[in-house]
Amino acid sequence: MHIKKQRLLTPGPTPLYPPALHAMMASDLHHRTEDFRKVYQACVTDLKEVLGTSYDVVPLVASGSGAMEASVSNLFSKGDKVIVCVAGKFGERWEGITKAYGLDSVVLRVEYGQVVTPAQVKEALAANPGTKGVFIQASETSTGASHDIESIAKAVAATDAIRVVDGITGIGTQPLKIEEWGIDVLIGGSQKAFMIPPGLAFLSISPKAWKRADASDLPKYYFNLKKEAKNAAAGESSWTPATSLMLALAKALEYIKSIGPDKLIENAQLLAKATQAAAAELGLELFSKDSPGAAVTAIKAPAGMDSGAIVKGYKQRFGAIIANGQGTMKGQIFRIAHLGYFDFADMFAVIAALELILIANGHKVKLGSGVAAVQRVYAEAAGIQA
Amino acid sequence: MHIKKQRLLTPGPTPLYPPALHAMMASDLHHRTEDFRKVYQACVTDLKEVLGTSYDVVPLVASGSGAMEASVSNLFSKGDKVIVCVAGKFGERWEGITKAYGLDSVVLRVEYGQVVTPAQVKEALAANPGTKGVFIQASETSTGASHDIESIAKAVAATDAIRVVDGITGIGTQPLKIEEWGIDVLIGGSQKAFMIPPGLAFLSISPKAWKRADASDLPKYYFNLKKEAKNAAAGESSWTPATSLMLALAKALEYIKSIGPDKLIENAQLLAKATQAAAAELGLELFSKDSPGAAVTAIKAPAGMDSGAIVKGYKQRFGAIIANGQGTMKGQIFRIAHLGYFDFADMFAVIAALELILIANGHKVKLGSGVAAVQRVYAEAAGIQA
Repeated sequence: MHIKKQRLLTPGPTPLYPPALHAMMASDLHHRTEDFRKVYQACVTDLKEVLGTSYDVVPLVASGSGAMEASVSNLFSKGDKVIVCVAGKFGERWEGITKAYGLDSVVLRVEYGQVVTPAQVKEALAANPGTKGVFIQASETSTGASHDIESIAKAVAATDAIRVVDGITGIGTQPLKIEEWGIDVLIGGSQKAFMIPPGLAFLSISPKAWKRADASDLPKYYFNLKKEAKNAAAGESSWTPATSLMLALAKALEYIKSIGPDKLIENAQLLAKATQAAAAELGLELFSKDSPGAAVTAIKAPAGMDSGAIVKGYKQRFGAIIANGQGTMKGQIFRIAHLGYFDFADMFAVIAALELILIANGHKVKLGSGVAAVQRVYAEAAGIQA
Repeated sequence: MHIKKQRLLTPGPTPLYPPALHAMMASDLHHRTEDFRKVYQACVTDLKEVLGTSYDVVPLVASGSGAMEASVSNLFSKGDKVIVCVAGKFGERWEGITKAYGLDSVVLRVEYGQVVTPAQVKEALAANPGTKGVFIQASETSTGASHDIESIAKAVAATDAIRVVDGITGIGTQPLKIEEWGIDVLIGGSQKAFMIPPGLAFLSISPKAWKRADASDLPKYYFNLKKEAKNAAAGESSWTPATSLMLALAKALEYIKSIGPDKLIENAQLLAKATQAAAAELGLELFSKDSPGAAVTAIKAPAGMDSGAIVKGYKQRFGAIIANGQGTMKGQIFRIAHLGYFDFADMFAVIAALELILIANGHKVKLGSGVAAVQRVYAEAAGIQA
């Protein structure tokens, strides 16, 4: 009541892994030293292991959007025809970046909450011979929907197009088999399943994608992937790296390796399943009914209730920060995150709080019923006969 | 499931207030400087405000037990007759200290879970003329029981005895009106309601108690309260102070003042009330039925279940550290803490976890029912019609 702990429960920044936060205190070191080179190399090696690839992985001092831009400016040329899948605010970001760089963007737009299907991508490829790239989100954070990256990547395989996947909230929440499926570029960000603050992004880059870099005629300077990849191999960055964040990332990657990257995904998926079950129990609808992802569960506010009242209830009653809808979805949905450092105890509290907030706003629910739905998912996974 | 956050949920050390933890990073300062003197003086001034007293408050680099010993070695003399109230492991600590220093201890011992009553103290005072002191715990952390300090302190008022109250877990969980009730010595520790790590203790000392210091013939050197009080007034400590902990304490005291010391107590009392309601709902008995305190709720394990299985369940299933019973109570009870930096969201998770742990150990409960009891206490306090 009087004490309300600040709890960061958004789909990014996500809750911090405490030992990673504490590791940032060792930032009084210089980046052009052997000590820091070891940290940098460990991060690159461990990123490859966690992403499950032998492809180059290039870190950038940028947020995820910077890495998205880098993939365009480094791997494409003016006027290239590309297919852009737009299922929400982050798909719109692909649209904005590809247009800003003068690509010839064919936009596959679906309604918010829906997903672009493999059939739609196939059809667009057939209608647009010579397509140089397909841009998509693995997880569309703004709607909670998840794309079928395996089928889409495979549908593109026979063409010359490279597959550029924004995995910023997909990594750690859904399988993304880079080499097996043919993901040419996969983009990640530090403040998501990596459990550390914002400021770092990274890209994995396939040999097929690297060939494009040689031909690219778009302007770039700070985001120079070839230069960065060459330096990274030597434990160096082209510009001054964010030392504190690399120290944090090294610690977080050790933790993720100790859990296992697959288990990290399973963790998010179980929490998403539990949240979906709780929503159903409380008479609430998912915003993305057909393809809900495990990064974040987007839930519609009950009829007549502004989702802002739920977001405000979390903050004012319980000190917790959860996400409202973005753009036109603001006021319609609220989003409960699962990616990264979240556990079942978090979800018990999040749903118990939700029940009280709903009641305070006039939506009748039975106290404890949503929590029981979460507990049943835990019990089933843990083999407890509840 | 795969991610289990470490949650420190014991009655000391208690969960840390994050800004206080972060303040410790400024420890690269020297203690004999004006900068640190300001920190020290702010701590002493704010401790007085939070404790609600104009009496001297003396900080010590020690755990609470050190301050308990200091109260004996500084304010008593060899052979002094004293009454020692023993209702658990911490009462036994008074017994051990007073005997170690050669006091003539009259022990008022009650069964674990019970409390020493004002009538018992009155009777003992009448039977032991010339009693120099009465030692007691406000909150007996080992059993969860709380003493009626107001009545006991007032019962002693007419005598020469000074009232020495271990408020280590009582401060911030039950009212302790130092001057109004006549508490001559009140002892606190940093790792309790003060929300910072262990290593600091403090005592408030009444004029009546100070008179005893002049006459005291017991050996002491490090714990010299007169010397420490004189130095504290000038922002100094007699020995090297724990600078990091003082920096943390200054920050935590600012937070406690911003909530209000009375609200801090009310917070713990609401969480205790909610936990008691959940225990009843889950068919569990309190260990201290008559006088449960708000620092910690001690609950009996169901018949035939070792409480260690519950403690282990919290750790292994949810990464949470809760307290088992101490001494002969080990295996019989488990203890859920409320003192300091705990909120309702913590309690939702603690009780949801408990329900699953009980079921996994064969004690049938209805999922969500204990959480609903906690929610009802929240709703009532928050004015929500549930």
